[in-house]
Amino acid sequence: MTRNIAIVVSYDGTPYCGWQVQPNGVTVAEKINGAIASLTGKRSKLYGSGRTDSGVHARAQVANFHTEFSAPAEKVVPGLNAFLPPDIRVLRAYDVDDDFNARFCAVSKTYEYVIQNSRVLSPFLVHRAYLVKYPLDTGLMNEAASVLTGVHDFTSFMASGSYVTDAVRDLSRLEVRREGDIITITASANGFLYNMVRILAGTLIYAGCGRLSCDDVKAILEKKDRSDGAPTVPPDGLYLKNVVYQGEYSYVV
Amino acid sequence: MTRNIAIVVSYDGTPYCGWQVQPNGVTVAEKINGAIASLTGKRSKLYGSGRTDSGVHARAQVANFHTEFSAPAEKVVPGLNAFLPPDIRVLRAYDVDDDFNARFCAVSKTYEYVIQNSRVLSPFLVHRAYLVKYPLDTGLMNEAASVLTGVHDFTSFMASGSYVTDAVRDLSRLEVRREGDIITITASANGFLYNMVRILAGTLIYAGCGRLSCDDVKAILEKKDRSDGAPTVPPDGLYLKNVVYQGEYSYVV
Repeated sequence: MTRNIAIVVSYDGTPYCGWQVQPNGVTVAEKINGAIASLTGKRSKLYGSGRTDSGVHARAQVANFHTEFSAPAEKVVPGLNAFLPPDIRVLRAYDVDDDFNARFCAVSKTYEYVIQNSRVLSPFLVHRAYLVKYPLDTGLMNEAASVLTGVHDFTSFMASGSYVTDAVRDLSRLEVRREGDIITITASANGFLYNMVRILAGTLIYAGCGRLSCDDVKAILEKKDRSDGAPTVPPDGLYLKNVVYQGEYSYVV
Repeated sequence: MTRNIAIVVSYDGTPYCGWQVQPNGVTVAEKINGAIASLTGKRSKLYGSGRTDSGVHARAQVANFHTEFSAPAEKVVPGLNAFLPPDIRVLRAYDVDDDFNARFCAVSKTYEYVIQNSRVLSPFLVHRAYLVKYPLDTGLMNEAASVLTGVHDFTSFMASGSYVTDAVRDLSRLEVRREGDIITITASANGFLYNMVRILAGTLIYAGCGRLSCDDVKAILEKKDRSDGAPTVPPDGLYLKNVVYQGEYSYVV
């Protein structure tokens, strides 16, 4: 009998060419596909909540696959982990209804962008945070963030060359907090455009050092053009924090 | 003119055969020696506050070296980092008096031992924490810690085969705290015996799951014999947190 299993996966994206299977380089989904085949004896199609780019990390990515594998869901966690490298870990597994799809049932996602605001990047944050050496004012960053929060056309915050017919997204949360020299930008939305979080982070960094005012940020947003904005910051600091599902699947976290 | 420079160094010990230069394998001190020679044009003798073992990390190790290099101390930080791999970072550098020696002037040291108390080791803690899958009670761990705190002969908490004439140490602090599934053991003393923190951590883990009572821990301490104690836990979770210097060198942190 076929069942549908949802898994919550955490990974250090450093050595991977992103989530999505592709011909040139090892990807996270490819590793999970291999583990599913090894555990269940059959290949399954894996549906991720969305792609993460090369070098981007995940604290709780969600994916699902249909399988005839009959062991209880709680056995799937150690079962898959036994076939996965230590930098990819299945944290949880659930039996879900046949119509659950990790991508299409996702209601919102939260990303974090981690900055170390210091002269020297910690050895423990290599490939895991973005070093900004000049002082950042998180008050200024939060003021700029409030300009961007809400329902907007985010064309100015989408990688140029992206082909999306509708760039309107509901950025329900964009917040900056500091603990010591670590600054974390948290962004939640019903969907993100290509490179959107990394461009938002680059914009807030420019705001935090006074290079962009709130009026500048507003003008960039209204221009609906990527060419004049702040730079896209590296993937190293980017983490898919979680994916939210509503109603009956809200336990998938 | 010769000067004496103290440096504060952080490193991810995972790929290194410890601090101390040795013939078989790359060490942290060897990398720093190489960076000093590259920066100053001359080899210098490097004095560390103490050795860390293979795979052990440091948040703020202290070392010093005598050199004729004439650039200001603040230029030494980026100067050395330019010749070091990203998993070894010089955080600070100070001019100190000629008689300062990072080892002999150290008054006390603090180590942290990091445990992830969970079913699955986070991809972000591979080689950086020790996974304990069974539930640990930090209340029980702190009770056992209080038995061990103070001035004692710690022969039972020293790797067997160590030759030390006096195993009396002042363990001024041994504390356990939990944040989510991360348990951190903090140990401060005027000196540590070989493997002492890893044996203390192993003992507190046994106490935290009820395998050793406070009376058992007291009996182990009083026996002054390593053979009956709890196991030595792996280096992965061990961090040299800082080294304290008194009086005129108290700024070296």
